[in-house]
Amino acid sequence: MDTLRKVLDRDFDAVLAVIPDALKAEGFGVLTEIDVKATMKKKLDVDFRRYRILGACNPSFAKKALDHDLEIGRFMPCSIAVYEDDQRRTVVSAVDPMESMIRAGETPEMRELAAQVKEKLARAVGRIE
Amino acid sequence: MDTLRKVLDRDFDAVLAVIPDALKAEGFGVLTEIDVKATMKKKLDVDFRRYRILGACNPSFAKKALDHDLEIGRFMPCSIAVYEDDQRRTVVSAVDPMESMIRAGETPEMRELAAQVKEKLARAVGRIE
Repeated sequence: MDTLRKVLDRDFDAVLAVIPDALKAEGFGVLTEIDVKATMKKKLDVDFRRYRILGACNPSFAKKALDHDLEIGRFMPCSIAVYEDDQRRTVVSAVDPMESMIRAGETPEMRELAAQVKEKLARAVGRIE
Repeated sequence: MDTLRKVLDRDFDAVLAVIPDALKAEGFGVLTEIDVKATMKKKLDVDFRRYRILGACNPSFAKKALDHDLEIGRFMPCSIAVYEDDQRRTVVSAVDPMESMIRAGETPEMRELAAQVKEKLARAVGRIE
């Protein structure tokens, strides 16, 4: 089971509205948001499905990770893709920090931090209803 | 040699100012920006070095990648860390799309796209003076 992914039988905007609170409960703030549909229209003049990319960050974990390895910022924030699938369900799919963060330098400390961030992110995704 | 990383003997703000044009020359726009120093101050009340995380995206490549695999958005945008090191030099360090994007599903098409994005990103970093 992929704990970082969830398919909801709810409207895109309704799901989008509840995500910040689900993340907040695990200490993440939404620091950035990209409206992919709007960007595609503006930059390429193509029509694309409803799709957002949220950038989530847990400040205390980010501080620990950066104190350990200053370069780790290139793997931040944690991106969460939210989009409407062909059945008009809403898919939430978060990046796995274990896959990205630890690659910078796989020390036991960074592995532990990445595992904790992953767990928190998975709990946040689990909260989205 | 790491083509996605550059250390410049210039002030942080001066480097930050030239990055958008360097990226633009390779078709990337800066879609997001996180002021890590300000966020640390606000959220944790700690003083941190000057540090930004830029989110860069090349819309036509993003479109190709998403058409190939809708889930790939969780690896977007390409994060570029820009920070002041202990010698007051400015470090620019971009994520390697070959390390992140292709993990979602390593098809030949995605590998080729990731390689092209990496090459463009490396050229953009190379342009930063």
